[in-house]
Amino acid sequence: MLLFVVQLVGIVAFAASGALAAVRARLDVFGIVVLALTTALGGGIIRDVLLGVHPPETLRTWPYLLVATVTGLIAVWFHPQLARLRWSVLVADAVGLGLFVTAGTATALAHELPAYSACLVGMTAGIGGGAMRDILLRQIPLVLRREIYALAALAGAVVVVCGAELRLPEVPVTLVGSVLVVALRLLAIWRNWNAPTARRPPP
Amino acid sequence: MLLFVVQLVGIVAFAASGALAAVRARLDVFGIVVLALTTALGGGIIRDVLLGVHPPETLRTWPYLLVATVTGLIAVWFHPQLARLRWSVLVADAVGLGLFVTAGTATALAHELPAYSACLVGMTAGIGGGAMRDILLRQIPLVLRREIYALAALAGAVVVVCGAELRLPEVPVTLVGSVLVVALRLLAIWRNWNAPTARRPPP
Amino acid sequence: MLLFVVQLVGIVAFAASGALAAVRARLDVFGIVVLALTTALGGGIIRDVLLGVHPPETLRTWPYLLVATVTGLIAVWFHPQLARLRWSVLVADAVGLGLFVTAGTATALAHELPAYSACLVGMTAGIGGGAMRDILLRQIPLVLRREIYALAALAGAVVVVCGAELRLPEVPVTLVGSVLVVALRLLAIWRNWNAPTARRPPP
Repeated sequence: MLLFVVQLVGIVAFAASGALAAVRARLDVFGIVVLALTTALGGGIIRDVLLGVHPPETLRTWPYLLVATVTGLIAVWFHPQLARLRWSVLVADAVGLGLFVTAGTATALAHELPAYSACLVGMTAGIGGGAMRDILLRQIPLVLRREIYALAALAGAVVVVCGAELRLPEVPVTLVGSVLVVALRLLAIWRNWNAPTARRPPP
Repeated sequence: MLLFVVQLVGIVAFAASGALAAVRARLDVFGIVVLALTTALGGGIIRDVLLGVHPPETLRTWPYLLVATVTGLIAVWFHPQLARLRWSVLVADAVGLGLFVTAGTATALAHELPAYSACLVGMTAGIGGGAMRDILLRQIPLVLRREIYALAALAGAVVVVCGAELRLPEVPVTLVGSVLVVALRLLAIWRNWNAPTARRPPP
Repeated sequence: MLLFVVQLVGIVAFAASGALAAVRARLDVFGIVVLALTTALGGGIIRDVLLGVHPPETLRTWPYLLVATVTGLIAVWFHPQLARLRWSVLVADAVGLGLFVTAGTATALAHELPAYSACLVGMTAGIGGGAMRDILLRQIPLVLRREIYALAALAGAVVVVCGAELRLPEVPVTLVGSVLVVALRLLAIWRNWNAPTARRPPP
């Protein structure tokens, strides 16, 4: 129940980020809702396709669809207010990333994937929706260049895997992993941390 | 048999739209054929991956592959004539959308998906090929901005789902749904209908 | 064993091409590694999703992941040297294409796909990773415009299918197919062969 509520919050956050990006790209109402749905549900769909869960859980769970659609519609009418709440959107996006990564990793472990595979699947579940949003809007996915986005996701996945190895109870481990992802993301945004780029290529 | 013929017509239409877009992007012959195949078969492949049909039906059905390839090759040599037939291409694209949406929704219902999931899968089947075409050519998918494209697809999917709920015979329901999609799309193009965009974001 | 070694070489090659492209796009270290992994593993993941292999073999085989990650990290620090080795990168990319196409086609045949479907799946396995790399970096996939890239892949797939039809032993057939792909690609690069484009569209 706790996880379900938090997952809904994550879907709201990702749907809002997709809808706001669509508003900025001048899409119409249906484009905005389509992009909100894609961003909110894309990561989970990719995860379930990789794990062989048919049909994907996110396509079967109507509250997810309802919440993502409503969030998209709200963003159409209230996007100026939402844009002013940029900080809360970033926080919610980090929360969504944290929860989707840890839940995705735990789901992959439950399907008996080895630890490193579960980490990759979990990271894909957290990152995939935002990457689809950026590809559809013709942008280089922010995960490829934003402040330690992939590293935060990896840290959360590793926590879940270590917890499973040590047979710790699943719920607190998932929460610790999620909080770690959120903390790393917010610290990176706040301090403007960035991973090093390669040395400048010769001209 | 009727459905098979109409589906082939839809594949011809989508293959032609992909090939013509590839010609405009100055791709070579193989690029054009690859894009024709991707546009014609992409939606069905995504549908079958979501439903867990392995391998996807469109990859196993050789007339689909043959028709899409031949259409692509014809477009290479006759694209000036085809481009003049812009209206018939748009009609064919609408026919393809209508049929793929209704057939996709019916297929999803046959796999015992709930109604709202079947609508989403059917819409994805109709929209997916064109979206892949636009992503490969670095364009924002037209479905995200074109006149009520997604709404027409949704209407067709809802007709199929309602027909199944009321246990109406499948073939006429599929035809009614397809005709509704085509009519909505052509009306939208003819009258230049567009869904409202969000209010202009503050500068 | 031979195949495993050659497949690792192919992964190194694709990982290097993805990492070098990421360096040119000014991505940070994590972006470079993510792109190296995507390019090296993407084709195999698409192949296994189409064939219904869950989870995809490349996600379960840790040497593949390790080699791709290490290659990405090496490219971060030594990319000027690698860029000077442009010819060897192109050779390695051709080797990777050749092996992934033939191995993918053989895998698809082992899943009892018909011959033409196996060719398509094999070509997708060889081409998919590079296409994902280019889409993530907002480029029209080079396979759509580069010198007979798709034709070389098709030739390799046809060799494997014909060998299976004639019940020839699998290993030499795979090697012959791979060598044919590599030879065609290198000849095309060396002689600057290109497939014809469509006649110029009217202005």
